[in-house]
Amino acid sequence: MNISALIAALRAALGSERVRDDAETLAIYSHDDTPGSCAPVMVLFPRSHEEVQAIVSIAHRHHLPLVPRGAGSGNVGGAQPVPGSAVISFECMQRILDYSAADRVITVEAGCVTGAINAHVQADGLMYPPDPGSSPYCRIGGNLAMNAGGPHALKYGVTRDYVLSLRAVTGTGETLCCGVRTSKGVVGYDLVRLLVGSEGTLALITEATLRLLPAPAAKATLRAAYRHTASACAAVQRIMAQRHIPSALELMDPHALAAVRAMGAAGDLPADSNALLMVEVDGEACAIPDQVQAIRTALAGAGHLETLEATDATATAALWTARKALSPATKAMAPLKINEDVVVPVSRLCDLLDGIEDIATEHSLRIVSFGHAGNGNLHVNFLVHPQDADEMRRARHGLQKLFQTVLTLGGTLSGEHGIGRSKRAYVPLELSPESLAIQHAIKRVFDPDHILNPGKLFPED
Amino acid sequence: MNISALIAALRAALGSERVRDDAETLAIYSHDDTPGSCAPVMVLFPRSHEEVQAIVSIAHRHHLPLVPRGAGSGNVGGAQPVPGSAVISFECMQRILDYSAADRVITVEAGCVTGAINAHVQADGLMYPPDPGSSPYCRIGGNLAMNAGGPHALKYGVTRDYVLSLRAVTGTGETLCCGVRTSKGVVGYDLVRLLVGSEGTLALITEATLRLLPAPAAKATLRAAYRHTASACAAVQRIMAQRHIPSALELMDPHALAAVRAMGAAGDLPADSNALLMVEVDGEACAIPDQVQAIRTALAGAGHLETLEATDATATAALWTARKALSPATKAMAPLKINEDVVVPVSRLCDLLDGIEDIATEHSLRIVSFGHAGNGNLHVNFLVHPQDADEMRRARHGLQKLFQTVLTLGGTLSGEHGIGRSKRAYVPLELSPESLAIQHAIKRVFDPDHILNPGKLFPED
Repeated sequence: MNISALIAALRAALGSERVRDDAETLAIYSHDDTPGSCAPVMVLFPRSHEEVQAIVSIAHRHHLPLVPRGAGSGNVGGAQPVPGSAVISFECMQRILDYSAADRVITVEAGCVTGAINAHVQADGLMYPPDPGSSPYCRIGGNLAMNAGGPHALKYGVTRDYVLSLRAVTGTGETLCCGVRTSKGVVGYDLVRLLVGSEGTLALITEATLRLLPAPAAKATLRAAYRHTASACAAVQRIMAQRHIPSALELMDPHALAAVRAMGAAGDLPADSNALLMVEVDGEACAIPDQVQAIRTALAGAGHLETLEATDATATAALWTARKALSPATKAMAPLKINEDVVVPVSRLCDLLDGIEDIATEHSLRIVSFGHAGNGNLHVNFLVHPQDADEMRRARHGLQKLFQTVLTLGGTLSGEHGIGRSKRAYVPLELSPESLAIQHAIKRVFDPDHILNPGKLFPED
Repeated sequence: MNISALIAALRAALGSERVRDDAETLAIYSHDDTPGSCAPVMVLFPRSHEEVQAIVSIAHRHHLPLVPRGAGSGNVGGAQPVPGSAVISFECMQRILDYSAADRVITVEAGCVTGAINAHVQADGLMYPPDPGSSPYCRIGGNLAMNAGGPHALKYGVTRDYVLSLRAVTGTGETLCCGVRTSKGVVGYDLVRLLVGSEGTLALITEATLRLLPAPAAKATLRAAYRHTASACAAVQRIMAQRHIPSALELMDPHALAAVRAMGAAGDLPADSNALLMVEVDGEACAIPDQVQAIRTALAGAGHLETLEATDATATAALWTARKALSPATKAMAPLKINEDVVVPVSRLCDLLDGIEDIATEHSLRIVSFGHAGNGNLHVNFLVHPQDADEMRRARHGLQKLFQTVLTLGGTLSGEHGIGRSKRAYVPLELSPESLAIQHAIKRVFDPDHILNPGKLFPED
């Protein structure tokens, strides 16, 4: 069946306004928040599980590759179309299907905006903890596909830890319901967590039942400045060695601070500071002072310059100024930011930052690092000019070296962004041939014709 | 190859003392803590991952079914041999292979006693939270196979939530390493959580890296007595609707209290009490009084008779007397206890207990229920005489009705015990044919010749 006939068949199933192939729509959906683009042959806008199932059934019969898309805010090209593929956007599936404050569960469609879940449950004193930076606009389906994290993962865990059950459509167009609506359940294999983080390659998740937690009553934010990276890393280790797990523990390296200074957004930082920690603690109001005191003690040490503290919203926002300025600051530094997302054990964080310094020197690269230090999860940004072939070659060597360093330190290539298109060449550095063979075989179980998000997650054949 | 030749081959690989086929050994390993037994043809005692791999390679070549066994403390027959099988006991693999207090991770062999992990990390103020009742003697490999829970799962989660990486041997004798040693990681499919809870049917787990948490500084225990089940269930709902998640919230129904009274272990309970709640809260010492006050408020209400509180060890033990007497008390009531482990949403707990009452009346059965009320996870014990054919028939009908009730209430057949041999006939009540077909196909990926723990987890063909 040619593309026109396929479009006609899909229009017959969904209605013509749900199947778009005009140039403007194809252009909009040709990329996500990652360099690179590829126009799809059509964009589909299902409104329900049943419509997704209808799409996959037709796609399966006619070998049409499907690329699932939430908000397109991913940065590993997970929602980037491949040639001849249809994008299936979940933006018209935003309903909250069920909510029980008593049972602390909510069932939502895959296109529901993550922040909207929190907005919905807030009045009952509840929260959905995972909070990727894109929470205000990203969609839960994308979070589920990538097992999204965020700063609060340190205390609260990641997307995987909050999914009770899923409704999905496999690559053969079959409906798969898995998981439970209860807080415990051990019947059969854990298909829920197999689908979470599978980047849309096993099944298209249409609905999810999520676990909620009581929102903390109070929080406090601390910002500590250090003379050197090493002294900030030592403080991270001291914090993670005491009993109070912060709700967030973020680090900015000297290059991140320099970038922010260049933007004029670090005016209140000590002039000799070269590394910054942001710490957030939360809990009952009565428990905050003890936590703050313990964190202050851990923050102090060789190379520590100052600690500032905030509890009200205005002062807290002021403390986050430098950190919030970082994204625009790095964007201003170079046309392309290659954003890696590596993790090492907390005890090796300083070794990782030393290794990154060596890579920058050896390969003459500008690298800005910051991120979720309490998890040992750093966002390592290579700032490059795509037109500069020599710099791009050096960046490729530097990336390879970065991944080798991370694995030597007992770490992993990605903590929360996933593999997508961007990192799949590096997967064999981390996963054994045996593990990859099993993952390929699992892929064939769910999607024998390889129509779900092809060209993602797995290394190229 | 006949059994004698197989034994010879395995002795050549492992040493003769690692392969036992004497009558006494076969008898000991013919059952776990579940009614029913079947003698294996041999019992194997590997001392390392490599020896497990050697065993599976030989077993794979010669189609020898392998039944993995931790401490044999499971109660769904998960470690029960099948005819012609070899038991592979992990009791000689108890080493702690690696431990980092700084990174809060520990790597242990599968035969490590769960309680020993806690003993090892206690001096550093750390804990491994999952605590099935069998913690003092069960082995972590069994906990991983069944995704074990325990009372503290309410606040801290289950085994699955603490596993970072696994080393295992698939049914073809291949080594599979999966997961990370870091607190985050999203590279590839989540094979770790696919193996956890797979009841030894996909791969034999030999080593596990587990996440640790800081141990709470203080705790308090409350015991509340109620006139009726309904009033206790209402209190459970009130507790689970306020902000402080207890570290444990256990319920005993009227029949459980009657059993304990018959043992003389409920002397200090109000005479008119027919349901009991045990609540434990933990955290920083300064946060305990607020938590206790909030729980006390939630405990009070219609039908509430009294609340007692304990913080020191002696008083706490006294409060637990009735609950601790329950297991021997039910054992004294009938020769056989059919112990189910169902879960419903907390908001439906009272409906479940009403349903159980109806089943007991309708089918003239003695049923004692207690368990992890905060998770909606009840242990429902049918007390029967195996020689009484009519009672056993009524019990089968009652079980079927129980499972139907649980599923109608939005629940699941097992919260922490698993399926094993005992419950597999009921699995199709909960899992769809599509889900089961996918699970069978995953089984074939890991264990194409079906030699790993046959006759478990899946419904009979």
